[in-house]
Amino acid sequence: MSKPRPVEYANASPEVRAVYDDIKATRKVTEVNNFWKYLASDPSLLKRTWETQKAVLASGALDRLVKEMIYLAVSVTNGCSYGIACHTALARKAGMTDAMFNELMSVVGMANQTNRFADGYRLPIDDLFNV
Amino acid sequence: MSKPRPVEYANASPEVRAVYDDIKATRKVTEVNNFWKYLASDPSLLKRTWETQKAVLASGALDRLVKEMIYLAVSVTNGCSYGIACHTALARKAGMTDAMFNELMSVVGMANQTNRFADGYRLPIDDLFNV
Amino acid sequence: MSKPRPVEYANASPEVRAVYDDIKATRKVTEVNNFWKYLASDPSLLKRTWETQKAVLASGALDRLVKEMIYLAVSVTNGCSYGIACHTALARKAGMTDAMFNELMSVVGMANQTNRFADGYRLPIDDLFNV
Amino acid sequence: MSKPRPVEYANASPEVRAVYDDIKATRKVTEVNNFWKYLASDPSLLKRTWETQKAVLASGALDRLVKEMIYLAVSVTNGCSYGIACHTALARKAGMTDAMFNELMSVVGMANQTNRFADGYRLPIDDLFNV
Amino acid sequence: MSKPRPVEYANASPEVRAVYDDIKATRKVTEVNNFWKYLASDPSLLKRTWETQKAVLASGALDRLVKEMIYLAVSVTNGCSYGIACHTALARKAGMTDAMFNELMSVVGMANQTNRFADGYRLPIDDLFNV
Amino acid sequence: MSKPRPVEYANASPEVRAVYDDIKATRKVTEVNNFWKYLASDPSLLKRTWETQKAVLASGALDRLVKEMIYLAVSVTNGCSYGIACHTALARKAGMTDAMFNELMSVVGMANQTNRFADGYRLPIDDLFNV
Repeated sequence: MSKPRPVEYANASPEVRAVYDDIKATRKVTEVNNFWKYLASDPSLLKRTWETQKAVLASGALDRLVKEMIYLAVSVTNGCSYGIACHTALARKAGMTDAMFNELMSVVGMANQTNRFADGYRLPIDDLFNV
Repeated sequence: MSKPRPVEYANASPEVRAVYDDIKATRKVTEVNNFWKYLASDPSLLKRTWETQKAVLASGALDRLVKEMIYLAVSVTNGCSYGIACHTALARKAGMTDAMFNELMSVVGMANQTNRFADGYRLPIDDLFNV
Repeated sequence: MSKPRPVEYANASPEVRAVYDDIKATRKVTEVNNFWKYLASDPSLLKRTWETQKAVLASGALDRLVKEMIYLAVSVTNGCSYGIACHTALARKAGMTDAMFNELMSVVGMANQTNRFADGYRLPIDDLFNV
Repeated sequence: MSKPRPVEYANASPEVRAVYDDIKATRKVTEVNNFWKYLASDPSLLKRTWETQKAVLASGALDRLVKEMIYLAVSVTNGCSYGIACHTALARKAGMTDAMFNELMSVVGMANQTNRFADGYRLPIDDLFNV
Repeated sequence: MSKPRPVEYANASPEVRAVYDDIKATRKVTEVNNFWKYLASDPSLLKRTWETQKAVLASGALDRLVKEMIYLAVSVTNGCSYGIACHTALARKAGMTDAMFNELMSVVGMANQTNRFADGYRLPIDDLFNV
Repeated sequence: MSKPRPVEYANASPEVRAVYDDIKATRKVTEVNNFWKYLASDPSLLKRTWETQKAVLASGALDRLVKEMIYLAVSVTNGCSYGIACHTALARKAGMTDAMFNELMSVVGMANQTNRFADGYRLPIDDLFNV
């Protein structure tokens, strides 16, 4: 067997179930998504990743919606189809409208374009950006 | 000569000067940064890029600060040192605090990590994300 | 016709068949995988790539298993679904266990995260790393 | 001020110092490298990242050397100069010889090449890789 | 609803139809491809992107075929399956033969390989390349 | 010692010198550039890479200039500063003018932008691109 497999709740160890339960309670969902079911093949990886994600995505200096949009922008830049699908859904749940999504995509596209201009034209960094 | 060179205002054509003047007026700065001076070796590229950037970064459904933070998140993901330096400065000018920058970095790091988990574990996209 | 097509053994030139035969003998498989069948549309590209891969993946200072895991780590980082599927299978054939795969993924995820921290926080390289 | 700054031990909070002390004890070094000093501007990010890295890089199913070489392979693929410098040094400390480094680079180069062949020739994944 | 949706001609606003008509006339096709139909959810993004693409891909110092091959090389490097499919077709329409495609892929593969050698071996840029 | 070092002609083995001599003769230069001097720490990697590069970049269905521009487009997309510097110089030597470079950059920027639109809007590939 070479392909990774998901761990369903019914077959999960108590340690894994505890993480699934916390995900469901925190996100107010009735089922965890595939991301967690696959990581569960390594319970310590699952636990570590969930605890970090819970801390990182909690509202703080940035609110949840902004964080989800940044997450989506990175996923689009990496061309990660799962990340794009998952965080589009999570960003919408946090309040992203169609207009916000379209503007986010405009910025992501422009940044990917101008990053290449910066590298290709070999831009020296302006002094005022280095302070 | 192989290395790209900046076009300084003193040596710029009227077409290039008009773009420089608009950048300075729009951004309320006294000097354009290197990005524009290097693109100016192709005046049509300069004009097109500036007009798109002005439209894309204007406040709309997302405000300027959120847009600059998305821009920065992409630049970090691409490892573009000029983009990072430039858009850290622009995001700060738009109101990004130290705490916001640190939270942005936490999200960017987490997204780059979990994008690889998603690909490496070959996650099938959950049905609910495909609607 | 725009889509690349595989070259099956039955329709292959003697030059291509010789490479297919060497792949089958070296890897102890009865059929070459799609990677080689598609490259075969350019026999010189096929031959060059196979000969390099045979040399690069042979046991040397690093054994075959470590090499396959490095190959997989790169494929995951690039988000290349074919490379991930193929080199997960080859790494397993070379001895990668479930526990090793999970640890590999933990390292790959962490490296992709901290690479962005390094770029985003604009870290100067410590002197002791530059010797 | 827009550029991130390192937090030196002398100016660090007790929480940050505790992490620095653990890094020094764990790695048997007398000074923490810049990576940690910059993350310390967000003590929770510093603590979380160090604890994850300590767990992820500890010997387990894979030994420390293999983990450091995978870390390096990812850093090279991402073109992250800090990650390359840091993890070349750490891999050497864990036992990587010149010959091992050169073979690692050969594999990384080949994987980056063939990942693009896989995508560009639009390879369908062989059935046997999907089990 | 979280998944982006295409805008078909029948339901499009006059502003969007005008862009669709110009795409069809310029490219001599009877139907616009999905790329434009999805961008149309933001008419200003659609218009801006089409106008830039028309200007950028027009024959100039480089002819259309070379531009399409560069577009394809970037799409392969990014692992963007839509871009690969679309610009393979457009490059073929502009005259790319099987032999040209295979040579393009050889160069793209080699460049992706040697870019990693350059970063991993930490090459200092030769003085003669910095003039 | 952790940092890779160049192998100068004076200290090179006969095997390495033979490659250096062939590079100098083929490219009509009096000194090999750093890329080859660093790879020379592994003579088999040096020889294999040079022989592949010589084959791949020779004029064929695509001429040398087009190949160098494709090489440069990939290097810019990867943000590889050495590759950008080296292949800008080689492309110029093969005939790339300022106007050609600027148009190349416009295409590279646009492709990097639209690749993200394609992924972010989750475009299904049109049937006509899949034939």
